[in-house]
Amino acid sequence: MENVDRFPIQRVTNEGRTETEDVVVRELPLTILLNEKELVTMLCSPSNLDSLAIGFLFSEGLLKNRNEIQRITVDDQRGLVRVRTTDDIEPDTGFLFKPLIASGGGKGASFYSAVDVQDLARIESQVTISAHEIITLVHEFQHRSQIYRTTGGVHSAALCDTREILVFAEDIGRHNAIDKIFGHCILGDIPTDDRIIITSGRISSEILLKVAKREIPIIISVSAPTDIGIRLANDLGITLIGFVRGKRMNVYTNAWRVK
Amino acid sequence: MENVDRFPIQRVTNEGRTETEDVVVRELPLTILLNEKELVTMLCSPSNLDSLAIGFLFSEGLLKNRNEIQRITVDDQRGLVRVRTTDDIEPDTGFLFKPLIASGGGKGASFYSAVDVQDLARIESQVTISAHEIITLVHEFQHRSQIYRTTGGVHSAALCDTREILVFAEDIGRHNAIDKIFGHCILGDIPTDDRIIITSGRISSEILLKVAKREIPIIISVSAPTDIGIRLANDLGITLIGFVRGKRMNVYTNAWRVK
Repeated sequence: MENVDRFPIQRVTNEGRTETEDVVVRELPLTILLNEKELVTMLCSPSNLDSLAIGFLFSEGLLKNRNEIQRITVDDQRGLVRVRTTDDIEPDTGFLFKPLIASGGGKGASFYSAVDVQDLARIESQVTISAHEIITLVHEFQHRSQIYRTTGGVHSAALCDTREILVFAEDIGRHNAIDKIFGHCILGDIPTDDRIIITSGRISSEILLKVAKREIPIIISVSAPTDIGIRLANDLGITLIGFVRGKRMNVYTNAWRVK
Repeated sequence: MENVDRFPIQRVTNEGRTETEDVVVRELPLTILLNEKELVTMLCSPSNLDSLAIGFLFSEGLLKNRNEIQRITVDDQRGLVRVRTTDDIEPDTGFLFKPLIASGGGKGASFYSAVDVQDLARIESQVTISAHEIITLVHEFQHRSQIYRTTGGVHSAALCDTREILVFAEDIGRHNAIDKIFGHCILGDIPTDDRIIITSGRISSEILLKVAKREIPIIISVSAPTDIGIRLANDLGITLIGFVRGKRMNVYTNAWRVK
């Protein structure tokens, strides 16, 4: 399915009003079923739905190992992804949707709990990157963000090494774009440790935890981090770089990885 | 509580590396309790928590009338808002979190169902606005978005008439900024019909439905709409204007209200 559609619009400028057409980003309500049990319905861009579903299931801790996946069936017309596992997991949706009160914890759109932080090990990766490499990667990243440039409506994410973009994904949701990256890596046995994530969106606590779970040592945004995002990055040994624009950037945490 | 905090950073530019300080947007996990029952925990900016909670409860259909509210207690240190109603409503959280499969429906971050659309009447308001008034309002709107300008990390929303901004709110979430507006209006008995909403964020199906529920005839974004956002605006008689930048704009639906 296409990520964009076209609509007739009126464009109003100083010179008056013209009937024209605009390219608009599509939004699909996607339902994920795990062993035929409805788990969640999310709004997403209608591409790479298998990667999105698998990335989501791993991010939420419902799957832990690629070998658990027996079959993935995508019905992009109806907005359904069915995932069947080798063992007959009965998904605990109570875990997903349980409201939570905890300092530094929260649920919101993508469900994390304070427990996650305690389970995460500090990332010890010794990988480093130069400021010049960061600028080059972000330049390439923004060049790749085609849908954004035509519609202004999506987020992008990329998995990189210090030299090039390895996996790229787009979605109307910041979280979904990153889940698509990780889902693709899980399905294709692409390692993520010692790699770098670039995102077009804000680095909130939820994004930071998603990335920490995949043992990523460096996260880069063209946008801003939040306070909890910074605190978690600091605690978890992750290098957080924000506002990479032109030849400038802010290094918020673990700056020793930026040479 | 302040919406921002300060962090030490390294700023890297062509000229080298300097130790400095950056203003960063704060993120609070806020739990809403309705009659002492935990309803949801969301990530938000830590201001106007009473408005946010009330706006959320009305947007989700859990409250319908201001008279139902007996007491609101805000604990911004622990991130709690307690709402007590006159009648002892037992909130149906199953309704909130139930996964849903429906064309044009979805849940995602802010939980709406296809049923909502059927319940909504077409908006018949005869209010109109000129292109010049739109440009002036959006200019003032962007001027007011102070936190965005310092941190790059928040969304803004405003309720306006054709001449001026009446209510303004900021939050790290697009949805929350609009819920803060409506919550403030509900608590202050400020009417919203025949008014205009401006948002800094994307106009998705969820945003459009939230606005339609308050009988707003005109929604303006400096950003993009989605396809479902446009289809719903068209069906519900709402004028949707996007990409207001400088003296240009795109009118997507019900253009007769733009003179």
